[in-house]
Amino acid sequence: MEIKGLLFDVFGTVVDWRSGVSREVSVTFDALGRNVDAEAFADSWRGKYQPAMQAIRSGGRGYVPLDVLHRENLEATLAEFGLDDVLDEAGRTRLNRAWEKLPPWPDSVPGLAALKSGFIIASCSNGSIALMTRLAKFGDLPWDAILGAEIAQDYKPQPAVYLASCAALGLEPAEVAMVAAHNEDLVAARATGLRTAFLPRPQEHGPGQTTDLEPSSDWDVVAADLLDLSRRLTPQVSAAPTR
Amino acid sequence: MEIKGLLFDVFGTVVDWRSGVSREVSVTFDALGRNVDAEAFADSWRGKYQPAMQAIRSGGRGYVPLDVLHRENLEATLAEFGLDDVLDEAGRTRLNRAWEKLPPWPDSVPGLAALKSGFIIASCSNGSIALMTRLAKFGDLPWDAILGAEIAQDYKPQPAVYLASCAALGLEPAEVAMVAAHNEDLVAARATGLRTAFLPRPQEHGPGQTTDLEPSSDWDVVAADLLDLSRRLTPQVSAAPTR
Repeated sequence: MEIKGLLFDVFGTVVDWRSGVSREVSVTFDALGRNVDAEAFADSWRGKYQPAMQAIRSGGRGYVPLDVLHRENLEATLAEFGLDDVLDEAGRTRLNRAWEKLPPWPDSVPGLAALKSGFIIASCSNGSIALMTRLAKFGDLPWDAILGAEIAQDYKPQPAVYLASCAALGLEPAEVAMVAAHNEDLVAARATGLRTAFLPRPQEHGPGQTTDLEPSSDWDVVAADLLDLSRRLTPQVSAAPTR
Repeated sequence: MEIKGLLFDVFGTVVDWRSGVSREVSVTFDALGRNVDAEAFADSWRGKYQPAMQAIRSGGRGYVPLDVLHRENLEATLAEFGLDDVLDEAGRTRLNRAWEKLPPWPDSVPGLAALKSGFIIASCSNGSIALMTRLAKFGDLPWDAILGAEIAQDYKPQPAVYLASCAALGLEPAEVAMVAAHNEDLVAARATGLRTAFLPRPQEHGPGQTTDLEPSSDWDVVAADLLDLSRRLTPQVSAAPTR
């Protein structure tokens, strides 16, 4: 079957969460006169992401949007860094919105724009619709639709998230490719019947990254970045005038 | 409270469904050598829209996407026009997609683009995500998000549709304005706590239109069209350079 839609992982694949979050952490604590290792703070905050979602995936907790999990994880990270008494409620609310202000990788916006002329392009993130909408406005990400965890009321890599996203587009899973910088996301997407496209983001976790540097399987497409993906998927489109 | 988000009715308010559908009806039956009054066909097809949704609003039928209701209503309209034996299954599927190919009114795309620089803009239509996504691609409608009936699993003017759309944006109803060319849509939105913006579309139903030519109440904003709305809502934005 012909690929008609592309679903994108966002954190790490399309945007650089580590740079964006650590910048907001720096700005926040610099203003309070506290010296904080911002990248270590960002890593620790992000490190609580998978365990927090696991409680929901396993059915032990009902679905809550990622914004709520991010806020809970922020509380724990503040405690870890001895910053519990430093940041008031308004400051915590503002810092939690760091996840809405993440810079796209340099190839992301032109790559998505090129892909949009040939395919339906939608986010399929664990982020909420509210978060993804603001992130798209912040970085000018030209999504056709915002799908993912919230419409499925569950978190990737649960099959329901991929299936609900395809169904919302009126497409069969085999007509849709999942695009991600994380091999595990693609393992789950393939198991659910989607096509798969991998691109490495070797700086996602900073200079010492050891994971997802290479494709771990024979994914349908392997690209260097999103512009390269647009060239690989749409030879006919890249030759056509863009709208 | 400051308005941060705008929800838009789409059929009639943003796009000209009657011209779009009647054009597809003409193309379809001209190719089959049948002379059909395309605008009467479009009016009759659309005339079955509200009764079909009513079965779902009343709880007598579970939610099905509008594409399914459009298809059922197409079958009934074909029978009415004595065209039951003229169109095969593939032709019916194709004609049903007329609703994905509706021209925006001339002010819609520039008006939405101007509003997008100052607000989150999202569709809040009774159309499905699949339909609204394709309609946006067809007409270059620059939505930040596609919300509405499908995320609420119910149809306007049920309160759940407005409330689910505000919640998906992480906004209070009072931070959101519903934009529509239909007074009844605004009656329901206001009752649910949203702000309201009316603009007339006096050609929506063709030259003999008698409904919704004027605001029926003291809506928060009344505009001539979407460009005028952008000027009324965003004096500071319209003076700023567009991105």
